[in-house]
Amino acid sequence: MAAAGAAKSSLIDPDGGALVDLVVPAGERAARREEAAAMPRVALGRVELEWAHVVAEGWASPLRGFMREHEYLQSLHFNSLRCADGSLVNMSVPIVLAIGDAEKEAVGASPNVALAGPDGDLVAILRGVEIYKHHKEERIARTWGTTAPGLPYVEAAIAPAGDWIIGGDLEVLEPIKYNDGLDHYRLSPRELRKEFDRREADAVFAFQLRNPVHNGHALLMNDTRRRLLEMGYKNPILLLHPLGGFTKEDDVPLDVRMEQHSKVLEEGVLDPETTIVAIFPSPMHYAGPTEVQWHAKARVNAGANFYIVGRDPAGMGHPTEKRDLYDPDHGKKVLSMAPGLEKLNILPFRVAAYDTVEKKMAFFDPSRAKDFLFISGTMMRTYARNGESPPDGFMCPGGWQVLVNYYKSLQAEETGQQ
Amino acid sequence: MAAAGAAKSSLIDPDGGALVDLVVPAGERAARREEAAAMPRVALGRVELEWAHVVAEGWASPLRGFMREHEYLQSLHFNSLRCADGSLVNMSVPIVLAIGDAEKEAVGASPNVALAGPDGDLVAILRGVEIYKHHKEERIARTWGTTAPGLPYVEAAIAPAGDWIIGGDLEVLEPIKYNDGLDHYRLSPRELRKEFDRREADAVFAFQLRNPVHNGHALLMNDTRRRLLEMGYKNPILLLHPLGGFTKEDDVPLDVRMEQHSKVLEEGVLDPETTIVAIFPSPMHYAGPTEVQWHAKARVNAGANFYIVGRDPAGMGHPTEKRDLYDPDHGKKVLSMAPGLEKLNILPFRVAAYDTVEKKMAFFDPSRAKDFLFISGTMMRTYARNGESPPDGFMCPGGWQVLVNYYKSLQAEETGQQ
Repeated sequence: MAAAGAAKSSLIDPDGGALVDLVVPAGERAARREEAAAMPRVALGRVELEWAHVVAEGWASPLRGFMREHEYLQSLHFNSLRCADGSLVNMSVPIVLAIGDAEKEAVGASPNVALAGPDGDLVAILRGVEIYKHHKEERIARTWGTTAPGLPYVEAAIAPAGDWIIGGDLEVLEPIKYNDGLDHYRLSPRELRKEFDRREADAVFAFQLRNPVHNGHALLMNDTRRRLLEMGYKNPILLLHPLGGFTKEDDVPLDVRMEQHSKVLEEGVLDPETTIVAIFPSPMHYAGPTEVQWHAKARVNAGANFYIVGRDPAGMGHPTEKRDLYDPDHGKKVLSMAPGLEKLNILPFRVAAYDTVEKKMAFFDPSRAKDFLFISGTMMRTYARNGESPPDGFMCPGGWQVLVNYYKSLQAEETGQQ
Repeated sequence: MAAAGAAKSSLIDPDGGALVDLVVPAGERAARREEAAAMPRVALGRVELEWAHVVAEGWASPLRGFMREHEYLQSLHFNSLRCADGSLVNMSVPIVLAIGDAEKEAVGASPNVALAGPDGDLVAILRGVEIYKHHKEERIARTWGTTAPGLPYVEAAIAPAGDWIIGGDLEVLEPIKYNDGLDHYRLSPRELRKEFDRREADAVFAFQLRNPVHNGHALLMNDTRRRLLEMGYKNPILLLHPLGGFTKEDDVPLDVRMEQHSKVLEEGVLDPETTIVAIFPSPMHYAGPTEVQWHAKARVNAGANFYIVGRDPAGMGHPTEKRDLYDPDHGKKVLSMAPGLEKLNILPFRVAAYDTVEKKMAFFDPSRAKDFLFISGTMMRTYARNGESPPDGFMCPGGWQVLVNYYKSLQAEETGQQ
């Protein structure tokens, strides 16, 4: 008797070390377009296009496409995928493409399908497809640890999605661009690795964020660099790596964040000589301890060997209860234990807060707790909306001005709509 | 900088190969009882007592006690625990002891606590305790893949439990007994291994069940033995291993099942020479693909090297929707991919049904599907309740009579209560 459930074919690259690259070489594109024209079509939404981008560039390497059921189940139950040599690679969020009954019918028995972008243009081919049930409730429960209504990614990309999942090997017809003036920030893992080499980095420490950089973040990043130098590294390079895909509505939009980050470098809060700012093209799950593994794994693929992890990474408030959705300490604990991330050096975030005596952002000192002010995202937004200044030394003036302008424009828009 | 979240101490046995044995040797019990008398006390419910039994005998080996947070998080997120040598052992369900605010207060800073059984008698000591938050919603969602109300284990053992978990190293003061006339069936993993040796088994195939054995089950077990002989094994032994801990209310009770299983052997449906009937003392989660891993891992610890897995193992109906809670194929798929179970030989269950032409239980033949009758547990109960006989050849007559008597006694009780 054979072992049950052997995969028909695996999306895992047998050559575990090399980054997958699923973009069709320029010389072959015309032929592939012709071939794709005869295939049934499946439409990608914005979030699915972002995932195609992520997978094609190798952020999820050794994954080679949208997950077949074999990968989906491993990701859901074990947060990791087994390679042909028996080793485990981390893969904590399912990267899947959902389709509805009509699309399933249209695909029929075709082994290959063409994937169209949100504008209807041909984007990719999915080969050797496998269609299986999209058990939404189970996917949500196992990914988020809750099924409460109001999870942003669920509302945007799962609840409205179809009841089937189609997996297969991805071929992207050309590099995915967004034409939003920010594409030059979207360096692939390969491009980042080259840039680290060009700068002769001997350590790369990554900082994931989806918020403006305040001086507390900067303190932490600069302090990390100092520590790495103390450890004997000669040229540690910071990868300041804002997430660029789907985010929830009340997060600061990507273009505003990129402008804010530019000011932080211009005004010398972070040193441009030892910092690379690039966009991580993944959508955001807000799935706490499950998602932080994905955030770290993708940066390892891009060449980072140190990862900074803070309080409640990828966390948010519980959508229906007045509490954090996740235990704020679980993210760094789960990350430190995650299969496939054994070699990553995890740098725990020391909590920074505004020191009202020293009048600057500083590492929190519990022995004089009352001197410290924790400025939350909500407080920051309130200051900016009301045109008030945050305490001196909270954020560089140019960066703060970017936020003030953004919130003013929002208010103008809201007023205009009334 | 040190890696985050390093465990204070690990419950994982550094000697990964040997089964843990957490029962205090007879000569040391008096001294331990004296020591325990001075410790704060925590009360075990029936389900927690069953877990103490399970852990103490080594079913969950290398786990050495109720999980500390480090093990709990690994179990919840990865269904496995990392040993000191870096290898992974499977551990798919959290084995934890919940306590309330008052008990937490009573424990205070004491490093050790005494555990009392449901009758108030001293049962065990928990050493080097760690108390952490019991995030119930997250635990339920990640274990069951749903948070719908009505999950039997949740209703019995999680919803009413406290908001804290206490973990630590377990010492059971003497072997746990239930005095229900069935203790002689409760062989420990060590005792089972000895029995397999005594019988000179060269293959042990385990069959987990929580229902009466019908001739379809028997066909499967006998066919498995035949195949193992064909594969070259000389003396394959069947471990018929009914689950003996907590089950849901409408399952057939353990004593009735054991009587039914006895008849199946007495009447020669299974061969007593090559079958060992024993009770698996674990409580039942009804957690499908997550739980089947636990069921298999525990049997590996008891010396089984082949595990029979059927359709929808450890599954049940969705508590609030008219469908199976789990995809019926996921159990065997997830089991085949589970970290730490790589060496287990999984024997997929061929579906048996009543062949109305041959008038016996037979492997389902899709080419003449209309000849087959699938007799569900509900149908079986309906036959037995109404005093009707199932089709000839469905179950041996003595075994069937046990069920008829049970359901008659239930009806008498119900009538008496009216």
